Amino acid sequence: MNVEGKWRRTIEVVGDDVIVLDQAKLPYAIEWLTLRTVEEVARAIRDMHIRGAPLIGATAAYGVAIAIRTGANLDAAYQQLAATRPTAINLRWALGEMQRALAAGAEPFAAAAKIADDDVAACEAIGEHGKQLIAALGKPHPNDRINVLTHCNAGWLATVDWGTALAPVYKAHEAGIAVHVWVEETRPRNQGMLTAWELLQHGVPHTVIADNAGGHLMQHGKVDLCIVGTDRTTRNGDVCNKIGTYLKGLAAHDNNVPFYAAVPSSSIDWTVGEPAEIPIEERSADEVRFISGYGGRVEIVPRGSAVANPAFDVTPRRFMTGLITERGVATPATLARMFSK
Amino acid sequence: MNVEGKWRRTIEVVGDDVIVLDQAKLPYAIEWLTLRTVEEVARAIRDMHIRGAPLIGATAAYGVAIAIRTGANLDAAYQQLAATRPTAINLRWALGEMQRALAAGAEPFAAAAKIADDDVAACEAIGEHGKQLIAALGKPHPNDRINVLTHCNAGWLATVDWGTALAPVYKAHEAGIAVHVWVEETRPRNQGMLTAWELLQHGVPHTVIADNAGGHLMQHGKVDLCIVGTDRTTRNGDVCNKIGTYLKGLAAHDNNVPFYAAVPSSSIDWTVGEPAEIPIEERSADEVRFISGYGGRVEIVPRGSAVANPAFDVTPRRFMTGLITERGVATPATLARMFSK
Repeated sequence: MNVEGKWRRTIEVVGDDVIVLDQAKLPYAIEWLTLRTVEEVARAIRDMHIRGAPLIGATAAYGVAIAIRTGANLDAAYQQLAATRPTAINLRWALGEMQRALAAGAEPFAAAAKIADDDVAACEAIGEHGKQLIAALGKPHPNDRINVLTHCNAGWLATVDWGTALAPVYKAHEAGIAVHVWVEETRPRNQGMLTAWELLQHGVPHTVIADNAGGHLMQHGKVDLCIVGTDRTTRNGDVCNKIGTYLKGLAAHDNNVPFYAAVPSSSIDWTVGEPAEIPIEERSADEVRFISGYGGRVEIVPRGSAVANPAFDVTPRRFMTGLITERGVATPATLARMFSK
Repeated sequence: MNVEGKWRRTIEVVGDDVIVLDQAKLPYAIEWLTLRTVEEVARAIRDMHIRGAPLIGATAAYGVAIAIRTGANLDAAYQQLAATRPTAINLRWALGEMQRALAAGAEPFAAAAKIADDDVAACEAIGEHGKQLIAALGKPHPNDRINVLTHCNAGWLATVDWGTALAPVYKAHEAGIAVHVWVEETRPRNQGMLTAWELLQHGVPHTVIADNAGGHLMQHGKVDLCIVGTDRTTRNGDVCNKIGTYLKGLAAHDNNVPFYAAVPSSSIDWTVGEPAEIPIEERSADEVRFISGYGGRVEIVPRGSAVANPAFDVTPRRFMTGLITERGVATPATLARMFSK
């Protein structure tokens, strides 16, 4: 998508180098990070220089290719990459895809590129299916906008291109549908600022709000539709996503606002049927203690106070209006059937 | 309560001066602000050097006394003070109490002191009633703690002393009940840091979390009880409080966690029966754009993005387990009867 006026992907191969847009610096600085070793790939994932479940998967795939090129121990590389983030299932999925492709004789970088290309195709298909949902809400008055609320960043920065939750927004905006996005800041890491930055690059109208404000906006009819991403969805349609998503599922339910997750099939864990089976990553207290912005960061929590930082929660399937997949829009009840062949 | 080892109130009369603990600087610096004119009082309220519905009321009362002492136009002073914050009903209530007391011949500073003293007494009574609720949850194992979740700051910093939502916590802690508080950071202004600082001063165990984490903790049985404050409660028990409270009311309901508001009667608007009648203050975008901490502040929202900042929401009465008042614990259905004489 659009980075400083150029069409780019979040992960690219340039000559012998794999480069990624450094999301630990965004939106306050635009820098690319070069990944040359498995260690560098693992660190980029763990420290969230790249993030977003689909992009984590694609980056890990390139990590396997890099491991082979650098002559690293392949079993150790798989283990090291798999251990970087516990919740996003795309990581495990992409490593499995690489194992299968390599066993079938694929060239490592070509196999990783296929995972990246498939992600782009899946996201674009999600965009088309989701655009229909937005178009179907069509407002009666020409000056009205359709208000979409999203949490965290499930835009193109979270994927290789297009995004999951934001792909429908981009497709609708391209099609001339008047769409406006409520962007939740998404504490503690403020990935909402990534979402706002993405939308700015593409000229999509949007408004940043505190995470606390989403329910109030729904109570007052200011949200027509919620679309969120997912780090892992159970086969029954329970959606694990960034911490705080559950609260918006509750508010949407209480106010009859449709609540969708954009779910590429690479994010579905067919081995898991219930929320309790999904491991929830507890991240560093420093993510709550410190906030970064233009020109630096500040420490906000009183010194001496303890901090907890669970990174994800699960929105139970009963709150999901639908799951927007690359094959179409499923309900929790029809998800498994949609992918049964 | 305890400020640097001394027992203080948030607002005190020292000689001819009214001084307040400057909450725009807390918890990063402990400074007292002297209020000598109506303008200084109005600015202190509007710019949130003091905040919290009960303290806003008491401060406005002293503002009237200052107006009289400085020979200001009294009608203009009432209007100026009443216009500082639209949502907290205590402000209007305290100004009305002052008008009544002055009409009956009271000395102005004595009348303001009575409002402050009454607030302390009401808060302490709320503390005793709320302590019984906490004690009633008594855990079976001696090493367990009772986990109370609170949003924003409704501690002694929000009142003259004791606090509303935190008074039961202080009373329980004093009584030797093992209590632990989940402190929500409360974006955008991070009043949770005031709560954490207060609890630190009194040695009450607590853990700071992002606002997004509260629902997840309730899903996992880690919250025994929620207690929040209120800026205005309808006669039917709908609770207007800091933005984001509604989301925790939803999560508590979904997980069968008792959800209480601590409501001094000065926070009840008997003229209002429904949530829609309460004006919701929209505050400056800069409160979302900038975050203060130790040593300064940072700008976090991408330049070019719009921001919205509604400061309060209403938790409908159907989500309220009870309302802890100075007269005892009411339900929304019994609130009016409790104060009928």
